[in-house]
Amino acid sequence: MTTLITGGTVVGPLGATPTDVLIDGETIAALYAPGVAAASGVTADKVVDAAGKYVVPGGVDVHTHMKLPFGGTFASDDFESGTRAAAWGGTTTIIDFAVQRTGEVVQDGLAAWHALADGNCAIDYGFHMIMGGIDDEALKAMDYLVEHEGITSFKLFMAYPGVFYSDDGQILRAMQKASDNGALIMMHAENGIAIDVLAAQAVARGDTDPVFHGITRPSALEGEATHRATVLAQVAGNTPLYFVHMSASEALAHVSAARGAGRNVFAETCPQYLYLTLEDQLGAPGFEGAKWVASPPLRPRDEPHRDDLWRGLRTDDLAVVSTDHCPFCFKDQKELGRGDFTKIPNGIGTVEHRMDLVYQGVATGRLSLERWVETCSTTPARMFGLYPKKGVIAPGSDADIVLYDPNAKTMIGAATHHMNLDHSAWEGFEIAGKVDTVFSRGTEIVAGGAFHGRAGHGQYLRRGLTQYLR
Amino acid sequence: MTTLITGGTVVGPLGATPTDVLIDGETIAALYAPGVAAASGVTADKVVDAAGKYVVPGGVDVHTHMKLPFGGTFASDDFESGTRAAAWGGTTTIIDFAVQRTGEVVQDGLAAWHALADGNCAIDYGFHMIMGGIDDEALKAMDYLVEHEGITSFKLFMAYPGVFYSDDGQILRAMQKASDNGALIMMHAENGIAIDVLAAQAVARGDTDPVFHGITRPSALEGEATHRATVLAQVAGNTPLYFVHMSASEALAHVSAARGAGRNVFAETCPQYLYLTLEDQLGAPGFEGAKWVASPPLRPRDEPHRDDLWRGLRTDDLAVVSTDHCPFCFKDQKELGRGDFTKIPNGIGTVEHRMDLVYQGVATGRLSLERWVETCSTTPARMFGLYPKKGVIAPGSDADIVLYDPNAKTMIGAATHHMNLDHSAWEGFEIAGKVDTVFSRGTEIVAGGAFHGRAGHGQYLRRGLTQYLR
Amino acid sequence: MTTLITGGTVVGPLGATPTDVLIDGETIAALYAPGVAAASGVTADKVVDAAGKYVVPGGVDVHTHMKLPFGGTFASDDFESGTRAAAWGGTTTIIDFAVQRTGEVVQDGLAAWHALADGNCAIDYGFHMIMGGIDDEALKAMDYLVEHEGITSFKLFMAYPGVFYSDDGQILRAMQKASDNGALIMMHAENGIAIDVLAAQAVARGDTDPVFHGITRPSALEGEATHRATVLAQVAGNTPLYFVHMSASEALAHVSAARGAGRNVFAETCPQYLYLTLEDQLGAPGFEGAKWVASPPLRPRDEPHRDDLWRGLRTDDLAVVSTDHCPFCFKDQKELGRGDFTKIPNGIGTVEHRMDLVYQGVATGRLSLERWVETCSTTPARMFGLYPKKGVIAPGSDADIVLYDPNAKTMIGAATHHMNLDHSAWEGFEIAGKVDTVFSRGTEIVAGGAFHGRAGHGQYLRRGLTQYLR
Amino acid sequence: MTTLITGGTVVGPLGATPTDVLIDGETIAALYAPGVAAASGVTADKVVDAAGKYVVPGGVDVHTHMKLPFGGTFASDDFESGTRAAAWGGTTTIIDFAVQRTGEVVQDGLAAWHALADGNCAIDYGFHMIMGGIDDEALKAMDYLVEHEGITSFKLFMAYPGVFYSDDGQILRAMQKASDNGALIMMHAENGIAIDVLAAQAVARGDTDPVFHGITRPSALEGEATHRATVLAQVAGNTPLYFVHMSASEALAHVSAARGAGRNVFAETCPQYLYLTLEDQLGAPGFEGAKWVASPPLRPRDEPHRDDLWRGLRTDDLAVVSTDHCPFCFKDQKELGRGDFTKIPNGIGTVEHRMDLVYQGVATGRLSLERWVETCSTTPARMFGLYPKKGVIAPGSDADIVLYDPNAKTMIGAATHHMNLDHSAWEGFEIAGKVDTVFSRGTEIVAGGAFHGRAGHGQYLRRGLTQYLR
Ligand SMILES: [Zn+2]
Ligand SMILES: [Zn+2]
Ligand SMILES: [Zn+2]
Ligand SMILES: [Zn+2]
Ligand SMILES: [Zn+2]
Ligand SMILES: [Zn+2]
Ligand SMILES: [Zn+2]
Ligand SMILES: [Zn+2]
Repeated sequence: MTTLITGGTVVGPLGATPTDVLIDGETIAALYAPGVAAASGVTADKVVDAAGKYVVPGGVDVHTHMKLPFGGTFASDDFESGTRAAAWGGTTTIIDFAVQRTGEVVQDGLAAWHALADGNCAIDYGFHMIMGGIDDEALKAMDYLVEHEGITSFKLFMAYPGVFYSDDGQILRAMQKASDNGALIMMHAENGIAIDVLAAQAVARGDTDPVFHGITRPSALEGEATHRATVLAQVAGNTPLYFVHMSASEALAHVSAARGAGRNVFAETCPQYLYLTLEDQLGAPGFEGAKWVASPPLRPRDEPHRDDLWRGLRTDDLAVVSTDHCPFCFKDQKELGRGDFTKIPNGIGTVEHRMDLVYQGVATGRLSLERWVETCSTTPARMFGLYPKKGVIAPGSDADIVLYDPNAKTMIGAATHHMNLDHSAWEGFEIAGKVDTVFSRGTEIVAGGAFHGRAGHGQYLRRGLTQYLR
Repeated sequence: MTTLITGGTVVGPLGATPTDVLIDGETIAALYAPGVAAASGVTADKVVDAAGKYVVPGGVDVHTHMKLPFGGTFASDDFESGTRAAAWGGTTTIIDFAVQRTGEVVQDGLAAWHALADGNCAIDYGFHMIMGGIDDEALKAMDYLVEHEGITSFKLFMAYPGVFYSDDGQILRAMQKASDNGALIMMHAENGIAIDVLAAQAVARGDTDPVFHGITRPSALEGEATHRATVLAQVAGNTPLYFVHMSASEALAHVSAARGAGRNVFAETCPQYLYLTLEDQLGAPGFEGAKWVASPPLRPRDEPHRDDLWRGLRTDDLAVVSTDHCPFCFKDQKELGRGDFTKIPNGIGTVEHRMDLVYQGVATGRLSLERWVETCSTTPARMFGLYPKKGVIAPGSDADIVLYDPNAKTMIGAATHHMNLDHSAWEGFEIAGKVDTVFSRGTEIVAGGAFHGRAGHGQYLRRGLTQYLR
Repeated sequence: MTTLITGGTVVGPLGATPTDVLIDGETIAALYAPGVAAASGVTADKVVDAAGKYVVPGGVDVHTHMKLPFGGTFASDDFESGTRAAAWGGTTTIIDFAVQRTGEVVQDGLAAWHALADGNCAIDYGFHMIMGGIDDEALKAMDYLVEHEGITSFKLFMAYPGVFYSDDGQILRAMQKASDNGALIMMHAENGIAIDVLAAQAVARGDTDPVFHGITRPSALEGEATHRATVLAQVAGNTPLYFVHMSASEALAHVSAARGAGRNVFAETCPQYLYLTLEDQLGAPGFEGAKWVASPPLRPRDEPHRDDLWRGLRTDDLAVVSTDHCPFCFKDQKELGRGDFTKIPNGIGTVEHRMDLVYQGVATGRLSLERWVETCSTTPARMFGLYPKKGVIAPGSDADIVLYDPNAKTMIGAATHHMNLDHSAWEGFEIAGKVDTVFSRGTEIVAGGAFHGRAGHGQYLRRGLTQYLR
Repeated sequence: MTTLITGGTVVGPLGATPTDVLIDGETIAALYAPGVAAASGVTADKVVDAAGKYVVPGGVDVHTHMKLPFGGTFASDDFESGTRAAAWGGTTTIIDFAVQRTGEVVQDGLAAWHALADGNCAIDYGFHMIMGGIDDEALKAMDYLVEHEGITSFKLFMAYPGVFYSDDGQILRAMQKASDNGALIMMHAENGIAIDVLAAQAVARGDTDPVFHGITRPSALEGEATHRATVLAQVAGNTPLYFVHMSASEALAHVSAARGAGRNVFAETCPQYLYLTLEDQLGAPGFEGAKWVASPPLRPRDEPHRDDLWRGLRTDDLAVVSTDHCPFCFKDQKELGRGDFTKIPNGIGTVEHRMDLVYQGVATGRLSLERWVETCSTTPARMFGLYPKKGVIAPGSDADIVLYDPNAKTMIGAATHHMNLDHSAWEGFEIAGKVDTVFSRGTEIVAGGAFHGRAGHGQYLRRGLTQYLR
């Protein structure tokens, strides 16, 4: 089966050029200058007219939590609903987090997550491994996963004492291992020990509304943990280090400094930190703000965080936009924390909207068209060892392709979204652009306003080492 | 005429991938995944086997001075000898500096340089304009050149009082104009007023050897001018600003700070600042050091400049490597300054060796393969409005292509080089790699150890605005 | 004649302690712990009860311009009226600026200023020398003044091209000289070349109101010049460098960085930059804003300048508060610039109010009591080679003493001030404190709400080298 | 009993001035300008001729550990021998650390230390409190000690997990308390959790020599902890924070940044970090290096730490020099760690040599005479609430006075020192200056090369809050 996409403008990190794309089976077979395919008699089983549209590599969302157990409940999207929603939004690859619970054998945790995903995904997927505790066994498992399982990135937590938390000694040991086997350490950087004191003090004095979730997690403590992790990575031997869900100016400043010094330090942010605020969303009247309880929290409106994060995306101090997709329904889930914000399940659902929300930055002049593709597709693929299979329109690459229409509009809301979620953190957002058609490994899974994919089409991705070192 | 390059590894800023390249006439017609061209019956007039070789976009050297008049003599390469030498070294585009002498009509200066180049170039070429004085006429000429002549970059000098020097008011006015018409200001950043005091003091006390050229141009004064120019560009309205031939840690630090703040500030360095030093070369016994007299000067060996510059290339604070090719023969030219270093013509000849010298950084682990292509070809093309015509292997681009052999070696020296120069600043350097074959707009101009090009093949390039804003 | 001041609290940079002070003739003879003088039978010709009052060293204002010629007119205070007003305000020493006009012999300029001051001053005074041009003769004069005239500080201008302006080469030469003879270089740091372009453009487009004086002198250009001067001082050999009238956050940041690196770099600010703004004063309706035209200008209200300057006073990055007293009457003087802000004489009159205005920072918690004395009296004396003769309450020091009443109030306004000025830049300011009694070299010159001094009491001070190096 | 010190030069932080000093009983009664005492007939029971000598306030060493239990043994100096040695060296006040062991009632720890010191000290003394664990009781005890016991500073440890270590939550709570009651938090800033991993790894691979004590405590981990503590203090509400025994450039840089931002952050260093190195002392052959095992460790010779620390003393980023006096004999004590550096008792004995070792910086031009007095006497007194009783030569202050002879010499070594220690960390050091005479509260305790003091002369000092805020 061959498909020829003609008349579109292929966009990559370096520029946008009119190019025709020939798909043969699951991969891209050839690229042609305009007119060449026709002139040289190239034929295809199907021809797709992409005139007026951007032809971009399918989105790569490297931070999702389908079905994550948290606070006695589970994230409301499973791999089927979550990957279908992702596809609707132009994302053709996710990397989800398999979890080793503290005390558990690492491989058992991985097996459990394979069981959740296997046969259920609409798009390709990989796993990072959350390490719930670093000991001699866990360090051996890191080698095993890199070598045999295609898992080359490991997430550690400086927050959540008693749950996922690793102390600085455990972090150092994991970093030494990564320094050795080339894996990437992913860090949730908030000083959870200090935060738990502040949260307990707030609850004790009766400050239990959702907004106190944000007030007790000040940005200074994200900055502190970020700095600490960069130092530990330096002591461990310039370990590749990737900060997840960066939300704070202070944290970004430490990343910029480390990068300016030539260190292998990287960071992602998420759409919620680019658009939403502590006052406007988390501080919504009554218990409404619970919809936006996530960690790190939304930041104060009058502080420079959002502007700094957009600038970080421009300067590449922020390399990636992911979603940290971790949806919990308001009813029965978010409501677990009525009267005590510390009991609200943490998470926001965005997997369907990432490509649109970042494109909105292009539409409003905050980001270049090239950086949109780079931060949402190319760099995530390179960062996590999937390039050039994913993240680029090039001969030999998987035919994960999105036709994006800059002249159409997208309205976001719970009534129309495809995530399994009874509300939307983005209700009422209107985007100046629209996902038109989505190919996953050569198969047209979204087109004409309908989903044509299927659970099980998506394959597990064994990943190589990060290609983003310098 | 069609040519198919098969079996090679195409290298770009994002990675290296096995890809076949079809050239049709002067441009690239198609790219194929390995095996696809054969399977689908693609034929070509000529097939080139690139197995084991890198297939890279032809080099773009954005800083050359063919036949430049300086201190009563002329740079020893003219456009014929200089572009031929460039081709030998894998460079397929140069941007030279047309000069408006103080008092002269800008367009007259440009016409003179067209006369020098027209019909003489082996490879394609463009011009920047050196502005010898900013007044109302000159500002109008800037608009004219951007709109009608394809000249979109203007060089100003904070050094050389009385020759090319512009004062801060003239610089500000030129920057305001560039802020308006989108042109790029290129800056020679050294505090020439202070340097002239130091140089005169040195000569007065009898310190006349070549090494005093370096001692009287301290790196702090390059840093100072660099900072000043970034502030003037900010006052003028975030004018796009590009520092030429950066040599000093202090200067780089100011560029890094401005870039971290999201400013449109860019810089290049040159191979001499990456490898050579004040003590080892400029301080050679007797008058020998005159070979390395250039401005800014080679920097002290025990200061961190070279390490910082390599790091800047990795972090993209330095975006481009150019040569500042400005050769003067030792005999009769450099010798003009015997007994008075201020009379030595300033310049070093490197146009032939840039691709090799930067590749040597790849061979020794200082730079990635991707950054080699990016700094020597892709970014220079994007920075100066030539992309995607130049700087990339993509359908529709000019077929400027270099096959680079990482397993061969290159020995550099005056006996073998092709520049019109009686010595080499790089005598004895051995490179772990070699330019094998060079295509310029589809024509094989270097192959099999011979030059097959011709004067006049090279065409003048009308350039667009810089594409490197953010 | 002996005077015993009893019951007061002596305040110095290190703390406040109850201490009795014995004056004998013109100097302080002894300090006693409370009760000791009485117990040991010390008698005095006069006993002053200072209960409830601070006993502080007389103020030292190191930046005044009595009778300065500027733009075709003269500052409205002469040495008689100006020093009398200073005394009223608790200042017992001024250092004024003698001027060498460009082309004039330095010593002739000094003689002219001696003629203005001699026999007219109510308090002691010294001179800095404004160098109107640096050449071989001027450099020799610098040595002469340091050695023979007690003039150890020299002011240069990076602003005012064509009037006081020195280019970077002249500045470098003067700094080399100062590096050699120990003198202090005082710098007016604004990029006057760039400012003149902006001012001319404003006038050309009809923006002629006083507020454009501020808009065309952006803080970035004070920052730029400040950085440049620190680099030139470094190249000259760690020359002691003192920035006058600092008004801008950017400038302060460069001073902080240089000081953090251990460089001999110092700065003063003035009350106007601590309290007044571009919008509130300089932007007053009609031509009213002319009252506040001074250079550098008042800064925009919503930028961080004022907070940063107060913080700089706390951290010692700003070492001194002076006034830059340079009064021009509104009528006939400021009015010279109606319709063209560039013709408004530059200057504000504050010599009478400095001690009060800075004490107001103590009253409102922005500054410690100790720093008030340190920035207004002790450090200026040490910085300019007058310590311990001036600036401290210590045995052997001149009996320049102020009794300051923290429980009284001071109302400022043209109706009550003693400066020769038809308006007040501080009209309506109310201070929570009051100068009660002032001694100059043992003589009570202000007491009981009356002036008891006389023109000619003040003596010329031959100064030593700065004592503030580190 | 009255004593008149005549003919000397009184030195304070602001300058040096010839002044006569009258002591009456335990305090300073009066200061006289030269000649005044004689002319006015002042008599005294004793007259001391200080001609040619500096008259300085007695040294204040705010960091000593007499009889500290550590690793199964006790520091070899008790309060008698230790304070006598201090007196020999010109130190007239120490502040020692009372210890609350984890689990112990704070007041019981304090009582134990009072029992050790009471009646045994040759000079005045105070206590800080080491908090071995922060819980509700401990927080109440902090209030009690500030209010009733004159203990206004509390030391916490980020190192030594399982012994003195506090986690970030405990630190935050203690800081909140200090923010409330005005106490000063003193911090041992090393990331002990990470260090313990490195130390265990070293021992496991057989790297057990003393030098590995230094190698496993890299300066980056002192920098990290320093940054973290400044952030926690900011979150707690600009808590006054004082870093003890700073040894590393990275740590100093964080302190400088916080201070530049106007934060109440302070630091001390110790003579060992100014002079000694990891290679030269800690890396001495065999087990010899054990003499210099202390935490933080001596730093690598070729890194910039020592130069940076001297510069920090000049710039006031380092406010105090203390000794961290904690002597252990080589025989039977240091030897406990043969074959395992982690078992070597940590500490160096310097209490006798501080004034000399810092004066050596004056003699060699690294520090001004004024800063010697300021860092060794005045600032420690102000920092810890003892000013003006201690730290200054002023009427009403305690007559703690040292006559220092800049023309004599001091040789340091175990054969001649007065500490109870079988070796000297400073063996062979020769100082260009000498303590001549020492007064403690009016009593001459060292004079004529002999000790005239007695155990029990020294009194306990109830201290006020720090006076060093800004
Ligand atoms: Zn997380
Ligand atoms: Zn997450
Ligand atoms: Zn140049
Ligand atoms: Zn050039
Ligand atoms: Zn001025
Ligand atoms: Zn002035
Ligand atoms: Zn300690
Ligand atoms: Zn200690």
